[in-house]
Amino acid sequence: MTLFFNKVTIIGVGLIGGSLAKLMKAQKLCGEIHGAGRSRETLEQAVKLGVIDHMGRGSAHAVEHADLVVLATPVGTFESIVREIAPHLKNGTILTDVGSVKGGLVRTIEGLLPPGVHFVPGHPIAGREKHGVGAASEDLFRGAKCIITPTEKTDAKALEAVTALWTKAGMNVVMMEPEQHDHIFAAVSHLPHAAAYAMVSTVAEFSAGADNYTTFSGAGFRDFTRIAASDPTMWRDIFLNNREALLEMLARFMEDAQAMSRAVRWGDEAYIVKRIEEGRKIRRSLIEMKQA
Amino acid sequence: MTLFFNKVTIIGVGLIGGSLAKLMKAQKLCGEIHGAGRSRETLEQAVKLGVIDHMGRGSAHAVEHADLVVLATPVGTFESIVREIAPHLKNGTILTDVGSVKGGLVRTIEGLLPPGVHFVPGHPIAGREKHGVGAASEDLFRGAKCIITPTEKTDAKALEAVTALWTKAGMNVVMMEPEQHDHIFAAVSHLPHAAAYAMVSTVAEFSAGADNYTTFSGAGFRDFTRIAASDPTMWRDIFLNNREALLEMLARFMEDAQAMSRAVRWGDEAYIVKRIEEGRKIRRSLIEMKQA
Repeated sequence: MTLFFNKVTIIGVGLIGGSLAKLMKAQKLCGEIHGAGRSRETLEQAVKLGVIDHMGRGSAHAVEHADLVVLATPVGTFESIVREIAPHLKNGTILTDVGSVKGGLVRTIEGLLPPGVHFVPGHPIAGREKHGVGAASEDLFRGAKCIITPTEKTDAKALEAVTALWTKAGMNVVMMEPEQHDHIFAAVSHLPHAAAYAMVSTVAEFSAGADNYTTFSGAGFRDFTRIAASDPTMWRDIFLNNREALLEMLARFMEDAQAMSRAVRWGDEAYIVKRIEEGRKIRRSLIEMKQA
Repeated sequence: MTLFFNKVTIIGVGLIGGSLAKLMKAQKLCGEIHGAGRSRETLEQAVKLGVIDHMGRGSAHAVEHADLVVLATPVGTFESIVREIAPHLKNGTILTDVGSVKGGLVRTIEGLLPPGVHFVPGHPIAGREKHGVGAASEDLFRGAKCIITPTEKTDAKALEAVTALWTKAGMNVVMMEPEQHDHIFAAVSHLPHAAAYAMVSTVAEFSAGADNYTTFSGAGFRDFTRIAASDPTMWRDIFLNNREALLEMLARFMEDAQAMSRAVRWGDEAYIVKRIEEGRKIRRSLIEMKQA
C-alpha cells in the first residue's frame, strides 16, 4: 500500500497538529495541507513557517475534498467541530484525531458521521514543555507510543492507513479498546496532572510576600510545576471528558496519600520505606524500558 | 579571614559529603580529610577515588583533633552520632550538618554538645538523581541555595566560617530560623516527595500482568517517578523528623486534591482552569528565577 493523501486538513495547528503536518511534508505523504482552527494568528504563523500550505476560512470549508482530516484541537471541541464538518466530508474521507480521551467521545463522534466517512480514533503519546506550532517538529513522535482504539465500526482500510501514518512517524502503534485507553491514561497521565495542580495550589498559598516558599524549591516541587505547566483548555477538557476514570484514580490516590499521612503520624517506618522502595523500583523499570 | 581547616572529618561520604570533600580539596580549604560512616565499602571507594585521605575506624576516632566535622548521613542518625562523637571533639571544633530537617533536631544536637564545640546547622539545597560518592562533584552546589539556621547559641565566628565555606562552593547562603526552614521545606520538598510516593503506590496497583499501565507513562507519571526515586532511609528520616510540618502540608494538599476531585465531578470549569493557570504562573516564575 502506498500511503499518500492528496489533500490533508489539520484542525488545530499547534504542537501536535503542526508536527504531524511537518512529518507528512518531510516524508512526502501528501499533496497539500490545509489548516483550520480558532486562531487566525496561529494559522498565519503556520503558513509563514511552511507547516501548512493553506489556511481555511473555517473548518467546514477547509475539509471539503480532503482525503484525511485530523482533529488536533482540545478534546472538548471535538463534538461541535464534527457536527460542523460532517456534512462537508466527502465519501471515503478518513477522519482521525490525536485526543487524550477516547471512550464515550469516540462513540459520540461515530454517531455524528455520515456513512462512507471513516473515523479512526488515535492518541500519539507525544508532547514537550513548549506549546504551539513554533515548537512543532517532525521528530516529535519518534520512539514514542501511539494508541489507536478501533471499535466494531472502524473501517479496516482506514485503520491500516492511520496505523501506517503513525508508524512512518516512528511511533510504536498499540491497539486497545477506547475504554481501556481512558482507564490507563487516567492513571498514568490525568491523575498526575490533577495532583500536580492540587500541589501547586497548596504551595502557592505560601508564595506571597517576602518569604516566598517557591523560591526555595529544589527538585521536588520544581518537577511538579513542570507537569503543571500545561495548556489550561486542553487539560480542562481532558479532565471533564474522562470524568469517571479520573474520579476513580483521584479517589484511589487520596486513599494512598491518607495512608502515607497516617504512617508519618504514627511513625510507621516499614510502610514509608516500602512505598519509597516501590517508587525506586518503578523508576528503574521505566529507565530500563526507555533504554531497551 | 583565611578559610582553612587542618583536619576535616566527614561523617557520611555519599553524594553531598563526597562533593563537599572534593570541593574543599579543589579549593585547598583543608589539610586532610577523614571519612567515617556505616559502610566500609563506601569509605574504601571514597579513598580509592581520592575524595577523602583517610577512613576512620569509627566516628568517635575519626573526629579526634578535627577542626571541622560535617554530618552528612540521614538525619535520623544525627542524634546517636552526636552522642557518640561529643566527648571526642576538641575545644573549638566547628560541627555542621547538611540535613534537610532543622527545627527540633538542631535544639537536640545543641543540647548534646560540650561548651567550646560550635554547631552551625546547614542545609545545602543540592542533589541529583544519582546517589553515592561515585556521583560526587565539586560543582554540585554551584548556583543553588544553602540555608543556614543559626540559633541564639550559635558562635559568630563559626557561623562566619561555615557561611564562607558554602559561599566558596558557589552557593547563595540564606539565613533563617530552624522552624521556618522546616515549614518551607515541608511545603516545597517533603510534601512533593510524600505525594510522589503515594502516586506511585496508586499506579503500581495497575502494573502487574500483561497490561502494565506504567509502560504507557508519558511525561506526567514519569516526572513523579523521578521525584520518587530517592534514598529510602534518607526520606524516611526526613518524614519522621519533620512530622508536624509535613502532616500540616499533607492535610492542606489533600484538601486541594479533594477540591479538584469535586470540580471534576461537578464540571466546575472555572475552578479547574484557575488551578491550571496558577500552575503555569508559578512554573514561569521559577524558570525566570533560574535564568535571573
